[in-house]
Amino acid sequence: AVRPLRRRQPKKSNELPQANRLPGIFDDVRGSHGRQVCRRHELYVSFQDLGWLDWVIAPQGYSAYYCEGECSFPLDSCMNATNHAILQSLVHLMKPNAVPKACCAPTKLSATSVLYYDSSNNVILRKHRNMVVKACGCH
Amino acid sequence: AVRPLRRRQPKKSNELPQANRLPGIFDDVRGSHGRQVCRRHELYVSFQDLGWLDWVIAPQGYSAYYCEGECSFPLDSCMNATNHAILQSLVHLMKPNAVPKACCAPTKLSATSVLYYDSSNNVILRKHRNMVVKACGCH
Repeated sequence: AVRPLRRRQPKKSNELPQANRLPGIFDDVRGSHGRQVCRRHELYVSFQDLGWLDWVIAPQGYSAYYCEGECSFPLDSCMNATNHAILQSLVHLMKPNAVPKACCAPTKLSATSVLYYDSSNNVILRKHRNMVVKACGCH
Repeated sequence: AVRPLRRRQPKKSNELPQANRLPGIFDDVRGSHGRQVCRRHELYVSFQDLGWLDWVIAPQGYSAYYCEGECSFPLDSCMNATNHAILQSLVHLMKPNAVPKACCAPTKLSATSVLYYDSSNNVILRKHRNMVVKACGCH
């Protein structure tokens, strides 16, 4: 017997659908209580505060930035969200106590150079990877 | 005049030092109150629960896993921590209210294939990227 064609969802892109196009699961999803969405924040790291000026010659510190904010469903396209993060935030909506939201973390990092004394007292200039947050997203 | 040589830290690797080798900043850093460290947790995502069986033919769901747990200083080597995460958790120790801890997020994801109806009712088999958490870390 010919299987009746099932009613289809209006799915245009090949990406996972966002909740606002999912009939029947969520009627009304708001940003949770106006808390700030995931974004990059200023953070100057002072090597003096860290007590590192014993071995770090330069710089005295640098702008490292950090990521903080809500990753609430539906995840905006600017949240750099992975498919997994979209699914996790959907599941979080259904089981908030069992599964956490996706978290706001760096999605792009860059290096910074540090001049320092090594263990043999040589002066070394080294490029340290993943020191500066360039972009944040929900992961 | 010859500049007196400054007292050097015992720095072997070219990675940023972990706090336990930093004299004078932190005397005693414990895991915070025995909370679980960042790690991967089981999570089966059911497409039925998501109400997607209207357009997803197979599978009925899949093991997506998720990341959760503490990213407290000092970050263990198995935390896959970036240099930025190490620095952020150090700064968090000094200014816990100003800067959050690094967050426990996926560091490795893999794809999974889904058979579904597209918007023109064609049956499509597509490999969706970043659907399954393979490893977690502090970022």
